[in-house]
Amino acid sequence: MTRRILVIHGPNLNLLGRREPEIYGSLTLDEINRAIENLGNELECVVEACQSNHEGQLVEWIQESFGKYDGIVLNPAAYTHTSVALRDAIAGTGVPVVEVHLSHVAKREDFRQHSFISPVAIGAIAGFGLDSYLLGLRAVLAYLDKS
Amino acid sequence: MTRRILVIHGPNLNLLGRREPEIYGSLTLDEINRAIENLGNELECVVEACQSNHEGQLVEWIQESFGKYDGIVLNPAAYTHTSVALRDAIAGTGVPVVEVHLSHVAKREDFRQHSFISPVAIGAIAGFGLDSYLLGLRAVLAYLDKS
Amino acid sequence: MTRRILVIHGPNLNLLGRREPEIYGSLTLDEINRAIENLGNELECVVEACQSNHEGQLVEWIQESFGKYDGIVLNPAAYTHTSVALRDAIAGTGVPVVEVHLSHVAKREDFRQHSFISPVAIGAIAGFGLDSYLLGLRAVLAYLDKS
Amino acid sequence: MTRRILVIHGPNLNLLGRREPEIYGSLTLDEINRAIENLGNELECVVEACQSNHEGQLVEWIQESFGKYDGIVLNPAAYTHTSVALRDAIAGTGVPVVEVHLSHVAKREDFRQHSFISPVAIGAIAGFGLDSYLLGLRAVLAYLDKS
Amino acid sequence: MTRRILVIHGPNLNLLGRREPEIYGSLTLDEINRAIENLGNELECVVEACQSNHEGQLVEWIQESFGKYDGIVLNPAAYTHTSVALRDAIAGTGVPVVEVHLSHVAKREDFRQHSFISPVAIGAIAGFGLDSYLLGLRAVLAYLDKS
Amino acid sequence: MTRRILVIHGPNLNLLGRREPEIYGSLTLDEINRAIENLGNELECVVEACQSNHEGQLVEWIQESFGKYDGIVLNPAAYTHTSVALRDAIAGTGVPVVEVHLSHVAKREDFRQHSFISPVAIGAIAGFGLDSYLLGLRAVLAYLDKS
Amino acid sequence: MTRRILVIHGPNLNLLGRREPEIYGSLTLDEINRAIENLGNELECVVEACQSNHEGQLVEWIQESFGKYDGIVLNPAAYTHTSVALRDAIAGTGVPVVEVHLSHVAKREDFRQHSFISPVAIGAIAGFGLDSYLLGLRAVLAYLDKS
Amino acid sequence: MTRRILVIHGPNLNLLGRREPEIYGSLTLDEINRAIENLGNELECVVEACQSNHEGQLVEWIQESFGKYDGIVLNPAAYTHTSVALRDAIAGTGVPVVEVHLSHVAKREDFRQHSFISPVAIGAIAGFGLDSYLLGLRAVLAYLDKS
Amino acid sequence: MTRRILVIHGPNLNLLGRREPEIYGSLTLDEINRAIENLGNELECVVEACQSNHEGQLVEWIQESFGKYDGIVLNPAAYTHTSVALRDAIAGTGVPVVEVHLSHVAKREDFRQHSFISPVAIGAIAGFGLDSYLLGLRAVLAYLDKS
Amino acid sequence: MTRRILVIHGPNLNLLGRREPEIYGSLTLDEINRAIENLGNELECVVEACQSNHEGQLVEWIQESFGKYDGIVLNPAAYTHTSVALRDAIAGTGVPVVEVHLSHVAKREDFRQHSFISPVAIGAIAGFGLDSYLLGLRAVLAYLDKS
Amino acid sequence: MTRRILVIHGPNLNLLGRREPEIYGSLTLDEINRAIENLGNELECVVEACQSNHEGQLVEWIQESFGKYDGIVLNPAAYTHTSVALRDAIAGTGVPVVEVHLSHVAKREDFRQHSFISPVAIGAIAGFGLDSYLLGLRAVLAYLDKS
Amino acid sequence: MTRRILVIHGPNLNLLGRREPEIYGSLTLDEINRAIENLGNELECVVEACQSNHEGQLVEWIQESFGKYDGIVLNPAAYTHTSVALRDAIAGTGVPVVEVHLSHVAKREDFRQHSFISPVAIGAIAGFGLDSYLLGLRAVLAYLDKS
Repeated sequence: MTRRILVIHGPNLNLLGRREPEIYGSLTLDEINRAIENLGNELECVVEACQSNHEGQLVEWIQESFGKYDGIVLNPAAYTHTSVALRDAIAGTGVPVVEVHLSHVAKREDFRQHSFISPVAIGAIAGFGLDSYLLGLRAVLAYLDKS
Repeated sequence: MTRRILVIHGPNLNLLGRREPEIYGSLTLDEINRAIENLGNELECVVEACQSNHEGQLVEWIQESFGKYDGIVLNPAAYTHTSVALRDAIAGTGVPVVEVHLSHVAKREDFRQHSFISPVAIGAIAGFGLDSYLLGLRAVLAYLDKS
Repeated sequence: MTRRILVIHGPNLNLLGRREPEIYGSLTLDEINRAIENLGNELECVVEACQSNHEGQLVEWIQESFGKYDGIVLNPAAYTHTSVALRDAIAGTGVPVVEVHLSHVAKREDFRQHSFISPVAIGAIAGFGLDSYLLGLRAVLAYLDKS
Repeated sequence: MTRRILVIHGPNLNLLGRREPEIYGSLTLDEINRAIENLGNELECVVEACQSNHEGQLVEWIQESFGKYDGIVLNPAAYTHTSVALRDAIAGTGVPVVEVHLSHVAKREDFRQHSFISPVAIGAIAGFGLDSYLLGLRAVLAYLDKS
Repeated sequence: MTRRILVIHGPNLNLLGRREPEIYGSLTLDEINRAIENLGNELECVVEACQSNHEGQLVEWIQESFGKYDGIVLNPAAYTHTSVALRDAIAGTGVPVVEVHLSHVAKREDFRQHSFISPVAIGAIAGFGLDSYLLGLRAVLAYLDKS
Repeated sequence: MTRRILVIHGPNLNLLGRREPEIYGSLTLDEINRAIENLGNELECVVEACQSNHEGQLVEWIQESFGKYDGIVLNPAAYTHTSVALRDAIAGTGVPVVEVHLSHVAKREDFRQHSFISPVAIGAIAGFGLDSYLLGLRAVLAYLDKS
Repeated sequence: MTRRILVIHGPNLNLLGRREPEIYGSLTLDEINRAIENLGNELECVVEACQSNHEGQLVEWIQESFGKYDGIVLNPAAYTHTSVALRDAIAGTGVPVVEVHLSHVAKREDFRQHSFISPVAIGAIAGFGLDSYLLGLRAVLAYLDKS
Repeated sequence: MTRRILVIHGPNLNLLGRREPEIYGSLTLDEINRAIENLGNELECVVEACQSNHEGQLVEWIQESFGKYDGIVLNPAAYTHTSVALRDAIAGTGVPVVEVHLSHVAKREDFRQHSFISPVAIGAIAGFGLDSYLLGLRAVLAYLDKS
Repeated sequence: MTRRILVIHGPNLNLLGRREPEIYGSLTLDEINRAIENLGNELECVVEACQSNHEGQLVEWIQESFGKYDGIVLNPAAYTHTSVALRDAIAGTGVPVVEVHLSHVAKREDFRQHSFISPVAIGAIAGFGLDSYLLGLRAVLAYLDKS
Repeated sequence: MTRRILVIHGPNLNLLGRREPEIYGSLTLDEINRAIENLGNELECVVEACQSNHEGQLVEWIQESFGKYDGIVLNPAAYTHTSVALRDAIAGTGVPVVEVHLSHVAKREDFRQHSFISPVAIGAIAGFGLDSYLLGLRAVLAYLDKS
Repeated sequence: MTRRILVIHGPNLNLLGRREPEIYGSLTLDEINRAIENLGNELECVVEACQSNHEGQLVEWIQESFGKYDGIVLNPAAYTHTSVALRDAIAGTGVPVVEVHLSHVAKREDFRQHSFISPVAIGAIAGFGLDSYLLGLRAVLAYLDKS
Repeated sequence: MTRRILVIHGPNLNLLGRREPEIYGSLTLDEINRAIENLGNELECVVEACQSNHEGQLVEWIQESFGKYDGIVLNPAAYTHTSVALRDAIAGTGVPVVEVHLSHVAKREDFRQHSFISPVAIGAIAGFGLDSYLLGLRAVLAYLDKS
């Protein structure tokens, strides 16, 4: 059966290509989405992507994923460090989530060292730029194959 | 004069019945609202309920309650621990708020031990499931009777 | 079957009416006990009340409640923040306890923000003066109805 | 060339005049905006103002300011202390931001002593009521004159 | 009118003369009480002294001092650092209390650096052995003379 | 000469057999005392045991042990973590004390990780249930043999 | 009536132009004082400026400002973070003080994140180089106009 | 040119299959190495693997990798949290390192929340069991392709 | 032999009578010095007093007291909390020092809860206004009588 | 069946007799091993002892004990406070471990107050010198008798 | 060219020989200065020495060293731990500073474990008494030889 | 008598010349050892040097130095911050140790601000590159001359 995967981009990721390029490179969000889609085709799964700057919207996309998607690749960006609501949505919905980050947060500010999301995710991948998403897609599919 | 009470449910409470049932039981939000309404009828007050996953929306419902409601029963859920905006809305609006929680947050994770809301609420009730709301309704009415 | 409820008042609550009236109001402990008794009559349960300034005495009343009472409404007052012995007594005895406070401790000194009792209580109610006890009585009865 | 400045008011500032007047005075948000506009006229720049209680909305106004405004005067209010998303929006957009506060946050609660916004702002002004905005407008214009 | 002063010795002070003499010297509690009494005679006030190892007993002596004594000289000893109940008794009773210590607690273990009693005492005297009590008696009398 | 050893059980240990049996097993306090007595007979010393829930009583038993007992086996239970008075009694009396615990406190809550008693005890034994007492008896006798 | 304003420069500000130019620019203290004086002329007030590296001298200038100046613009520099004496001088003298900083301290070392001065100043301005002083002068005059 | 990758397993990973299987599953280290080798063949790179319980040995393997391997996949296990020597070896050698963990450390004990290795790794992958290594191999190859 | 006592007043105490009268009352420093002098006459010792706002001056008065004074009554005021130099001067000089405070610092800001001076003083007296000095004079004389 | 017990001595214990004798006494490691062996003979079990200064060696002895020994008496010495690898070895191997210390670590430096080993040991014994080992041997045998 | 080195002694070092001789030995400051001078002669550089108890004076000597001295050997004594002004003077002046201490501060009180000076010094030497200065003189000369 | 000095280099120092040259310069370990040897010849002492990446090996070299060397110059590198075993070896062996560091650790990461070694070393020297070793050799010889 074909897997359906939702890729959720958190706040400010729509700025990619313009935002702090020395950290994130010059890729745009569209280019990232196309690369994920290509890998999805290769791995024979359906991938859809969405982005929001609104914590409440992200919460609702996670809630609504139940029954519609088999897994989620989530880059919570700034909300990683501040959103208990996102965490509760993941725990309450039960769809498996892989947390990904473009940059290696371990090298950045102190307040980015804590993730509210990690303890409710099945795993985390950080530091590989676009590849963090591609590895995340592989990771969630591998997880689903074993469940 | 008939009291008007607004019941505000915070983020992810629309998941009730599906979310971590070992903590919250199998009640749905609709069943909770009906039970509150029934007690409202018994206690001869008007009760209305609303739910949102958006911090900004919750802030605005509190702002707009002024002049329309005599008191608020608020379950801030995840925003209990992260929202200064909600706190400022309560302090700035001046409508009395009772804070309620389904589970006993004192038994949960460390980051749930701090509430931004408590210092601006008239009181707090936690741990009694649906009954937290019913006791909260009685509490706010008792408070209004004395004011 | 008629429920038997023990109301335990912790240290310095015998001072009520004289002690920091701007926080606790002018009610005496006797008036509080009469109000609880009246609500007990209305709700058709037996209520008894006791007060002590001695941590060891409070520990023993909790120990001795086993088999004699169905539930406890406990205002641990100052021992809330310092007594592991009281906590162990509650956990070891197994009679359900509702923790109540007259004032809203969330608005008071830092050292009052931590409760050793809360993690072993079924729930907590704070900030409603005399009504904290009355809501606590309702809460423990509602809890017993469901067990 | 005429400077274009965006003034952004954060959550609950629409309550001004009603909210904790002992701290903020009795000015309404409209009066503040008119005073800023007058100073803008005097200093020969274009000033526009907006307010939102939604973190996501504030993030997007900052993102959209790029190319449309030369500088921003931002009162992040409650989000000062909780929003990494706002911080990332400022850092990612690159439009210079002056942080302003009506009250002197250094005199308020502990949790207001930390600002996520300050390290990405060019400077900060706090404690002068309406004048914080007027000084902020002067500050951002002086900054632009030197860049 | 003759002042009546109660001197309360906290836990383990009955061991004086035997306990860690390198810190407290070789005076017994009786010798201390006699010295206080002598100074009381000289200053024309009535002094009574009592000692207990029980927190609850100390709480009750403070409660009962109301109307019977004009002031209290209290050496809370170990309870200085652990008893919120004693603090609440002092605050609730309203009889002025001077806190005294034989040794200079600032030179001892870290956990002795915090006093729950100090914020509700009119003042504190530490480090002068027997003289801490004598100075404490003078202090409370001087305070009463000015009230 | 026959050694005399006092075994002191702290608060809630009279509940043994009923209290959290998954941690402490089903032994009663009487069975523990008999086992200690039997080992005492085998090791040719006199053993006496007592239990109290009152901090003040425990303090006084330690004070009174001077001259009557050669050593103490003390399970301070909840007072381990909260009683400076007990610590001062041990330091002031000078009778050697071995601290014992039924469960391995290192595996329990954070607040149980600190002992006020340990720095004034000659040593500590934790985690072996009834055997903690038996090993404690051997430990204090071995200590006395070397002194 | 003509306002008299004292501008006080704290330690090491006499080094300006030589000291860490990547942070402070190449302006000298004399140039700063002339710019303030010019603005003072424009705003029709009397401005005087002084600088010291001695904490005690700064304390005394603040004490002596009473009756001689209507307001103070103070750059406490290093003493911002270490001087309780300066704070007490401001609180004890009662002349309104605006705290200014050349650089945005929020972007610098951790120990510069705390100001002893802020809670006793009417407001603070940081990050605008020379303009911090000019805005500070406007701020204190605006404050005086409203008092 | 064929990439050469070194896989380094830290302490206790030789226990795999026996150690806490509820966390790590029943895979042995040999099975993991075979799976990595297979993926290496598929991706046309040379993979070698080694394991040690000795911090010094791990340090030396990293030092010696220079010039012999193009990248390292490192599971530092327990030394993640305690070894500055390992960190210095990585920083000093300059061969790119991907940090992998079988379990999701974010869900485990507090002391496992800090990694000395992360800030000197190019990225990190945790929580996917065997797949953490496979994703790590892909990640280091993708990184090398872009360098 | 006549005792010679030096009374040292720390920073801002020359403001007494003008400074925060709700805390310190309306006494001036001259009146305090006269009262100390009177008590000195009564107790047949020589008392001299000095005041400085300069940490270095206070350090030197303490250094110079050696051989000229038998004891010191020191109110270190703001330097209590910030001056290691004062502490080292006291420890290095060896003249006995009694630390006094007008107000009860235990009731004031957090940063006033720590004293660098206390561990090198023979004792401390706080909270009695002018009487703190008078009691301090008695304390140092009593100490000298026993040495 | 004869029990086989491994006694493992951690780093620097080979120095015994030379190292800080005021803490550890003058016993050598050989004398300790002979005393343990003698008690082993008396209790009819086989005891073997080993010592290493290498964390990795200690890890491997624990790993290799599986199937060869029924229990371990471990004095982890300095590695108590720094070795997560040792902890993981114990948890992963599953042979019961009793932690022993010669001195009472509760009386020593702060960094010795935390043990990584305790939460995975069945119990701990500290402070009795050579007797800590002898009591540890009895403790592990008693534990095995009950399992 | 002959090097010119300034040796600056901080507060209380004029007490040397009298102050805590068990830590600092019986050397006077004059003897130290002569020893430094002798080594200066041997190493063919010009050495001058000064001492002050005034933070502001020390700041100014550092400021004035620019152009007059090639390097500084600084013993900041008590100001090591409290003076940001001294730190800023060093950073702002740019003359290379070697920090020296007579005693090994790592063995003393907690508050002496932090140095504001170290991060702006080229290096630090502590624990060797008079030799700390002599080594410091060699260190600064070696540094200048390489610059 | 000729002094014998052991120079011990800790982990990763064998990388010198390759490792983070912007911090450590381009010297190799061999060049450092030759320079130390040359100074040893000049000062007429015997110097030997060794390096290891293994904590256990370093511990044993320190243990074995007893009777063979008069003093040790130790650069503990990464183990400075993590090794209690090294500290215990130094304290237990009793050969005087001077701690040296190439770079000034005070300018590096937070976790490098704490040294387990310093409190058991006679002194420390940091920040002078190769000269740290040369000064360390002089320091230990000067120390031995005085002992």
